[in-house]
Amino acid sequence: MTDPATPLTGPTIDDAALWRSLQALATIGAYDAPDNLRGVNRLALSDADAAGRRLVKAWMEQAGLEVRIDRIGNVIGRRAGQDDTLAPVMSGSHIDSVTTGGAFDGALGVLSALEVVRSLNRAGVTTLRPIEMAFFTDEEGARFGTDMLGSATACGRIALHHAWSLCDRNGATVKEELARIGFLGKCDPCMRPPHAYVEVHIEQGPVLAAAGVQLGVVIGVQAISWQRLTIAGKSAHAGTTPMTLRRDAGLAAAMVNVKLHEMATSGRFGEHMRATMGSMTVVPNRINVVPSEVVCTLDVRNPDDDAMGAAEAELRRYLDEVAERLGVTITNQRTARTPRVVFDEEVLTTIEASMVARGLSHQRILSGAGHDAQELAAICPAGMIFVPGLYDGISHNPRELSTPQACAAGAQVLLDTVLKLANRP
Amino acid sequence: MTDPATPLTGPTIDDAALWRSLQALATIGAYDAPDNLRGVNRLALSDADAAGRRLVKAWMEQAGLEVRIDRIGNVIGRRAGQDDTLAPVMSGSHIDSVTTGGAFDGALGVLSALEVVRSLNRAGVTTLRPIEMAFFTDEEGARFGTDMLGSATACGRIALHHAWSLCDRNGATVKEELARIGFLGKCDPCMRPPHAYVEVHIEQGPVLAAAGVQLGVVIGVQAISWQRLTIAGKSAHAGTTPMTLRRDAGLAAAMVNVKLHEMATSGRFGEHMRATMGSMTVVPNRINVVPSEVVCTLDVRNPDDDAMGAAEAELRRYLDEVAERLGVTITNQRTARTPRVVFDEEVLTTIEASMVARGLSHQRILSGAGHDAQELAAICPAGMIFVPGLYDGISHNPRELSTPQACAAGAQVLLDTVLKLANRP
Repeated sequence: MTDPATPLTGPTIDDAALWRSLQALATIGAYDAPDNLRGVNRLALSDADAAGRRLVKAWMEQAGLEVRIDRIGNVIGRRAGQDDTLAPVMSGSHIDSVTTGGAFDGALGVLSALEVVRSLNRAGVTTLRPIEMAFFTDEEGARFGTDMLGSATACGRIALHHAWSLCDRNGATVKEELARIGFLGKCDPCMRPPHAYVEVHIEQGPVLAAAGVQLGVVIGVQAISWQRLTIAGKSAHAGTTPMTLRRDAGLAAAMVNVKLHEMATSGRFGEHMRATMGSMTVVPNRINVVPSEVVCTLDVRNPDDDAMGAAEAELRRYLDEVAERLGVTITNQRTARTPRVVFDEEVLTTIEASMVARGLSHQRILSGAGHDAQELAAICPAGMIFVPGLYDGISHNPRELSTPQACAAGAQVLLDTVLKLANRP
Repeated sequence: MTDPATPLTGPTIDDAALWRSLQALATIGAYDAPDNLRGVNRLALSDADAAGRRLVKAWMEQAGLEVRIDRIGNVIGRRAGQDDTLAPVMSGSHIDSVTTGGAFDGALGVLSALEVVRSLNRAGVTTLRPIEMAFFTDEEGARFGTDMLGSATACGRIALHHAWSLCDRNGATVKEELARIGFLGKCDPCMRPPHAYVEVHIEQGPVLAAAGVQLGVVIGVQAISWQRLTIAGKSAHAGTTPMTLRRDAGLAAAMVNVKLHEMATSGRFGEHMRATMGSMTVVPNRINVVPSEVVCTLDVRNPDDDAMGAAEAELRRYLDEVAERLGVTITNQRTARTPRVVFDEEVLTTIEASMVARGLSHQRILSGAGHDAQELAAICPAGMIFVPGLYDGISHNPRELSTPQACAAGAQVLLDTVLKLANRP
């Protein structure tokens, strides 16, 4: 933070170094995307992910960290404290990406934590508590189907043998792939609770930019419900079949989509319910055939667990009503369900104090997406800092972009926060 | 018609021979489908279609017909009349199929016409007028994108050079494929108007079976409008993007689908409007991403041209409203539009008289699908006979099935009708 108007209250982040490491990591797994963009494809435990891991691990070692790898492939670097018996303050995120990802999702959190270590080294500061930085395995869940895999295993929500046994679509298991890329570590993944955990992440949404603030203080993660509906109707000729004799699976899906939108915008389930029918496959998908089957997905989120439960109940009743009215059958498979996560108020006020001291405008925000921090929140006080993105915060896309200034602001607040927490007795 | 309760009033169809030829033709292009079914795949001008053409042409020649092939590949067989200068009475249909077709669509009309000729031969009857039977090229439009291609060219709606130039998805043209399979004939396809045209076809819908009648008298073909909508919204994260900041292309398509259904069932556009969103492709089609683009198709039919026009106008206004409300753009491409076709009342009453004489229950019905007869209706008095199918008349499907009795009833009425019309001075 080199802006002369900003009062410096301690060690400072090297904006340019942070940006350079973001750009360098983005070359690994890079691919050419339309509109002259470069995307990032570092699917978990792929060769590209392995190359990214080796690069970041080398940077961690160059920064003097003592690096260990656990049996689920999480990579953790430790900077000793004055009292090394105290629980460490931890920061981190992930470096795996979806197949069509960008340079910031996950990477910003990991490289901000690295920059915190480098800055403390530069300033010659030794904290009371040790500081640890980590990158966790397969946060995206894009390859093996379970997101936050590494952090959830480290925090005890997922058993190691289950995590190891997960397969990608080619039948390769997590354990085989960890061994293949040289990241099947020896440490027990079951993490002793850190003193606190703080993570920087891009917002991946438009809220901060719309509000015109520089940073977000993440108060928690919404409850998330994923369902897959299989709607079975009956194939029929679009010209010869009267409307009353149809069982149109496509119409049923459309009615559910419209209903969900009405529910999410009605206010009946709070002001922050979000609902999306993102995926839909129509059989036989022909212009003149009434669809016999639709498989579609529902993504419903709510910051309030009770409102989420009420919305799910209303949705279930509506599915029954549509099935009855249209003569279709609707099978409803839950593919994910996580309750609301609330971050630690003391960590949040520490983050906010740093933003105030640095003169950075900010607001509290709820995370719509899942993050490693929510797993850590189960075992220690945790909090997150959101950095807004350009283009309405588009993410999981080669267009994903933030500015050097915004990234540095996030990393600076992380540094200030970690420093305060790591000097707490 | 061997039922002793039915008074015989002239030559009779050989039920078993008709059924045998249906089964024999169905072996050409046959493939194994699920549930131990056999489907038919005789895509126009494919090797299977060519084999089917050779078989039926041989049967026509064995029945003593003088066979000619025109430059669009229509195959026409002529049975001389007492006065061969009079315009012939014609019957026919098509033998091409969709890729997942059955044994009856098209084939029943062609083989019923063949059975008419064979029955007249057996009975030693010579009609006043010549009788012609035909199978027309690519009625389905499933390969080259334009249905009723052969009959529309024969009746002057489509120019030969345009028909020849149509390409399949591999770039092969109609003309090349006609030449390749040996059916690029020498006759002028521009047909001199027959005296009348009568076609038997399976209903391809559930109406006759639901009414419990044996046959249908087809009074015409509905107006048909096909449109392809391209809805452009904006990809966004399902968790992080508030409902108010979305431009959800999938929701827009769902709203159009629900609206279309409301319109078709409201009665505002008559009692017989039909509307179907049969095909939908969602981009990027992921559970946690708001769809950025949907391409979907609309199939709208109405027996009343004015009501069709009013429905299309209301739909256009609604598309504008949805685009405005959701912040999406909707591009609307018309891919087909045919006005209502009305069949000839004198032909229809002749058909009905035969049904009455044969003791066959029947009702008037409007065709929801397009048929070669609608092209012939532009140049001569035309009519159609519908034979109900099993399983709600399912068609374009290996499950497509009618009974030997129902098929023979249709062919018998065709024989009686052709005989009457061919003896008209």
